[in-house]
Amino acid sequence: MRIFSTFVLPRRQIFNLRQFQTTTILREPISIAPIQILMDATEQSLRQSLSEKSSSVEAQGNAVRALKASRAAKPEIEAAIELLNNLKLEKSAVEKQLQSTISSSGNGSVNREAFRQAVVNTLERRLFYIPSFKIYRGVAGLFDYGPPGCAVKSNVLSFWRQHFVLEENMLEVDCPCVTPEVVLKASGHVDKFTDLMVKDEKTGTCYRADHLLKDYCNEKLEKDLTISAEKAAELKDVLAVLEDFSTEQLGAKIKEYGITAPDTKNPLSDPYPFNLMFQTSIGPSGLIPGYMRPETAQGIFVNFKDLYYYNGRKLPFAAAQIGQAFRNEISPRQGLLRVREFTLAEIEHFVDPENKSHPKFSEVANLEFLMFPREEQMSGQSAKKLCLGEAVAKGIVNNETLGYFIGRVYLFLTRLGIDKERLRFRQHLANEMAHYAADCWDAEIESSYGWIECVGIADRSAYDLHAHSEKSGVPLVAEEKIAEPKEVEKLVITPVKKELGLAFKGNQKNVVEALEAMNEQEAMEMKATLESKGEVEFQVCTLGKNVSIKKNMVSISKEKKKEHQRVFTPSVIEPSFGIGRIIYCLYEHCFSTRPSKAGDEQLNVFRFPPLVAPIKCTVFPLVQDQQFEEAAKVISKELASVGISHKIDITGTSIGKKYARTDELGVPFAITVDSDASVTIRERDSKDQIRVSLKEAASVVSSVAEGKMTWQDVWASFPHHSSASADE
Amino acid sequence: MRIFSTFVLPRRQIFNLRQFQTTTILREPISIAPIQILMDATEQSLRQSLSEKSSSVEAQGNAVRALKASRAAKPEIEAAIELLNNLKLEKSAVEKQLQSTISSSGNGSVNREAFRQAVVNTLERRLFYIPSFKIYRGVAGLFDYGPPGCAVKSNVLSFWRQHFVLEENMLEVDCPCVTPEVVLKASGHVDKFTDLMVKDEKTGTCYRADHLLKDYCNEKLEKDLTISAEKAAELKDVLAVLEDFSTEQLGAKIKEYGITAPDTKNPLSDPYPFNLMFQTSIGPSGLIPGYMRPETAQGIFVNFKDLYYYNGRKLPFAAAQIGQAFRNEISPRQGLLRVREFTLAEIEHFVDPENKSHPKFSEVANLEFLMFPREEQMSGQSAKKLCLGEAVAKGIVNNETLGYFIGRVYLFLTRLGIDKERLRFRQHLANEMAHYAADCWDAEIESSYGWIECVGIADRSAYDLHAHSEKSGVPLVAEEKIAEPKEVEKLVITPVKKELGLAFKGNQKNVVEALEAMNEQEAMEMKATLESKGEVEFQVCTLGKNVSIKKNMVSISKEKKKEHQRVFTPSVIEPSFGIGRIIYCLYEHCFSTRPSKAGDEQLNVFRFPPLVAPIKCTVFPLVQDQQFEEAAKVISKELASVGISHKIDITGTSIGKKYARTDELGVPFAITVDSDASVTIRERDSKDQIRVSLKEAASVVSSVAEGKMTWQDVWASFPHHSSASADE
Repeated sequence: MRIFSTFVLPRRQIFNLRQFQTTTILREPISIAPIQILMDATEQSLRQSLSEKSSSVEAQGNAVRALKASRAAKPEIEAAIELLNNLKLEKSAVEKQLQSTISSSGNGSVNREAFRQAVVNTLERRLFYIPSFKIYRGVAGLFDYGPPGCAVKSNVLSFWRQHFVLEENMLEVDCPCVTPEVVLKASGHVDKFTDLMVKDEKTGTCYRADHLLKDYCNEKLEKDLTISAEKAAELKDVLAVLEDFSTEQLGAKIKEYGITAPDTKNPLSDPYPFNLMFQTSIGPSGLIPGYMRPETAQGIFVNFKDLYYYNGRKLPFAAAQIGQAFRNEISPRQGLLRVREFTLAEIEHFVDPENKSHPKFSEVANLEFLMFPREEQMSGQSAKKLCLGEAVAKGIVNNETLGYFIGRVYLFLTRLGIDKERLRFRQHLANEMAHYAADCWDAEIESSYGWIECVGIADRSAYDLHAHSEKSGVPLVAEEKIAEPKEVEKLVITPVKKELGLAFKGNQKNVVEALEAMNEQEAMEMKATLESKGEVEFQVCTLGKNVSIKKNMVSISKEKKKEHQRVFTPSVIEPSFGIGRIIYCLYEHCFSTRPSKAGDEQLNVFRFPPLVAPIKCTVFPLVQDQQFEEAAKVISKELASVGISHKIDITGTSIGKKYARTDELGVPFAITVDSDASVTIRERDSKDQIRVSLKEAASVVSSVAEGKMTWQDVWASFPHHSSASADE
Repeated sequence: MRIFSTFVLPRRQIFNLRQFQTTTILREPISIAPIQILMDATEQSLRQSLSEKSSSVEAQGNAVRALKASRAAKPEIEAAIELLNNLKLEKSAVEKQLQSTISSSGNGSVNREAFRQAVVNTLERRLFYIPSFKIYRGVAGLFDYGPPGCAVKSNVLSFWRQHFVLEENMLEVDCPCVTPEVVLKASGHVDKFTDLMVKDEKTGTCYRADHLLKDYCNEKLEKDLTISAEKAAELKDVLAVLEDFSTEQLGAKIKEYGITAPDTKNPLSDPYPFNLMFQTSIGPSGLIPGYMRPETAQGIFVNFKDLYYYNGRKLPFAAAQIGQAFRNEISPRQGLLRVREFTLAEIEHFVDPENKSHPKFSEVANLEFLMFPREEQMSGQSAKKLCLGEAVAKGIVNNETLGYFIGRVYLFLTRLGIDKERLRFRQHLANEMAHYAADCWDAEIESSYGWIECVGIADRSAYDLHAHSEKSGVPLVAEEKIAEPKEVEKLVITPVKKELGLAFKGNQKNVVEALEAMNEQEAMEMKATLESKGEVEFQVCTLGKNVSIKKNMVSISKEKKKEHQRVFTPSVIEPSFGIGRIIYCLYEHCFSTRPSKAGDEQLNVFRFPPLVAPIKCTVFPLVQDQQFEEAAKVISKELASVGISHKIDITGTSIGKKYARTDELGVPFAITVDSDASVTIRERDSKDQIRVSLKEAASVVSSVAEGKMTWQDVWASFPHHSSASADE
């Protein structure tokens, strides 16, 4: 819910700080619903009561001491002491009650952490992911996907391409990560893509300012029972709003609370903004500053014109891009959820701002799922099941196209295996959105870290195309024929190709393109220089050098023209997917344990749907036997030829252990060769087994793995098998 | 053929410069076969003759002038003039002959350039690729893939995964691009990944030193007919060896030839090395220098230990990675062949150095294709067809595993659509290879730029694992049980988890890992400090900070142990694929033109195999008709659901133009709806059409597109269609 750029600019500027939700997406995982802002009534009264009890204990203690000092009668003193002890007992009871209230309001954080640890241990042990460069002690916020993780990622991306690019006929592009400064200046990232940082004044170690304040408040609330109800309320209030603090407010609070560097207890500097982009320099001269892109969207926006032409100058159309993005986080935490390099999949759907209907909306209109509209958040309610069609009809969701994408995202995530009860679409509050944005919804997935923003779906209006039109001078617009023509003045740049050809030969094309790409100001300056001096130095970036343009090489003029069309900047609706976050949540949702057959240990199972399972099938001989092994190899070859990823295991391990090992990798099917003629196929979740002929084995598995048949279909069609060598 | 690092170190060091062929791969596209070093005999004799004729003309001119000055008799003067004119004619004839010899020895460079221009124009116009950030005038060496280019790339990568990762059971990993310096220091890139650069002394513009010298020599040879045969021979000699020049030699030649900055004619600086990695800084403190990886291989090497365990501690096994790599080229040229960011697909096959046989070698042993062994290159012969099995048997290819990968690469490239007559495997010459390398072969593809190195297949022995073992202190080794145990001294680091847990709580794991990762020197230093001071500052990179380690938290000792196994560093065989280069060559090999039906224009066709075609099928109604349009939409939906990328075209354009448009995108099949019940399917290359029922259309196309049937099968099974509205 925090919009990081809030820190950087004061709040009331017209150029609203909320411009950045593109980039905000995937920056702050845990959203705090306003209901949590309200102080829990029980806790408050308990703190009140504890404070009263403490006063009573203190007062009675004083009374006892006074009686003793005045050498009062023994029975009187004993009665006073008994009262004191009773008061202490009462205080202690209230303390316990408060402690347990605090723990449970932490949403069972102990259980959550234990669960997370079990998942993460399994993931790391089986190489789903590992800290990068481990032999060099790693780098915080950088992770490698090992073989199963890499396969899951590749499956998720394939399905994304199928579900969005192919089924929606999107134009996919692939742009570089290295990006020149000018592009990110236009988008606003160079100036505002920052987090606030404080430094340990002695060691220079850096911390995220908001994290330190947050940690301080949480620690106080959880561990210090002596703070007053008022103080507790204040700390909770700070937690709720700290993400909207200005640099000065944040600095003031850190001072006020006396927060020091966590490791050294040294004093801290004032907070100051740190730009989160990795900076570099393009080319050998050091003169072209560049950055590793913090998102993939800008590559699409700068290509709008070409893509619009490619699409036959028709709206709406969508462009898509999958690729790496980079954010130099100050202090990455939360494992795969907050990393310094990650894969984004972004869609920019360009649409006429005057018509945001969607021809295929009816296909998702009947979907019902958890939505969390603005109003419910403000009034302290929780997310509720809504019908998408109604949400759009009632104006809860701004328009059909936005609604269509919400529906498609819901289908995408649930088909991957995300639990639909732990998935909600949360609308941005008015103060979370940019002034230009029409509406914005986040797909949030619940995990052990809380509700995680995994997909952002924003109607960003014409903001991005406008920004690049302005900076580049190239109009990024669409046209529509209109009935009544109107007269306008237009810049006309006409390169004289003959002269340019003579002068620049093979480089002519680059020079022509650069001339035509001039904006109005540049062109008029060139015209003036050519008229006064007859010649001008002109930088052609694609050649990496300056050329000399003479008067006879280009004609520049302004002409009056009649326009027969409406020219407008399209709106853009942007679904933006944090692939790593989705995958991590998927791991948590698919993870479960079940007892081994002997009941002496808990076995881990990843219940991945076949669509995303890293390996679709394992193949092993029941016992070590050459004939069985040969048969296993034949099946393996058949599986490879139809593109089914699988693993062949001819080690001497027991069949039960083999099943346990592959369950932990989430392999949905296992083929066991136990005769010359036929084999068994075992399904992971039910542990049911069927018997099929050797010849059919690969094709049956490939049918269920590719979703052409369900396990139920298979179960109904083949003889069942119950073996003495059952797996557990 | 040039190894860039040659520049940097003198030639005879034991730590051989040729260590870098990993990274050399894909750095210098045009290899010059030694045969070209030999001066073309005809050209040489023509230059000789031209120089003689010039002398004769000059001498005769002088004679004429002398006769005129001495007022000789008119007939005598006229005779002398006639002789002079004849000599001039002869000289001119030799000039013309020389000119034509030079042009043709350039391998028809004019034709090649025209062909390339036609391909590139089509590619850019149809958005296969475009210069990145065009509206900001672009950045040299950065390109975007537009929709069809992106689809081709995605198809090539999918096939790569199928052909290598899946069919060979490789372990795929996915590591970050951002890489800390220490990793690239170990690999040698920080010190030696450089090109030589010169600067314009006035403007500061940078040039690659070898390019300037090369351009100078080529220009002289092509355009200056007056240079002597000796001079021409010298220039050709320089061209042949300039890539082996030292910094000093290159500088001396540039001085000797008086080469100046091409744009300004200003003097140039001496050459100096420029590191080609994009540099950046990780984290907010600016204290962790990092680079964008120049290759993906290092990510695999540093994970060797985990991957080896994942593979059940068995050799051989292969790991693979697809990802972006970055090289900050000084002055990128040659379009998609020399870029600053590109996709690499790399395999590291780890094998026991004592046994490099391959169990599946027999599957490729009978392949025959163009190979260009060392010996043929040295003796001025050309590449010849060899049988791979024989090449390995005769020792031309060092070992079976290397041979197996050569065969698999051949199959991969030809199945993509690379013309097998324009594909050769060229062996590195002895002086091209590192001292440690066993053998190295490049898959070179012929294009309009010459023979392009697209895949490098190197047996790099144990070099890379050794380098990282040494730098990290983590032994990257494999084990094999041996009969006779031997005694060795070993470092033992035992973190005391109880104490560490108390001190570091949630961070305990990071601290333990960092302690265990210490190398011998670090551990012994820590031991000494703990013994003297009882406490030591210790950097934990994964936490991004220092912690204080006390004496009771870790025990460090050296112990004598008996070893029961042979411990060795595996050899690595590394096939490394430049995906962008392969795709560009594929474009050239698939491009052709054919006359339109009217014969008035040449139409472009990309003859992509269905496997790589960006769009598998177009669907259009024969005429604008609502029923036909509905049918087209139904087919489109069916195609989408089976994952066949396609385009539906319901514009009013003529069917001929629609075919021409899709031919230019390389779409192999077109479905035309011309009735309510049935449709035609047209194949792009033959332009043949069949008729199928509406219901079958999608499944027939999906079968041929996915290679389950060939067009010949389809042609034999369905009625043929010859329409009056034929496309051309």
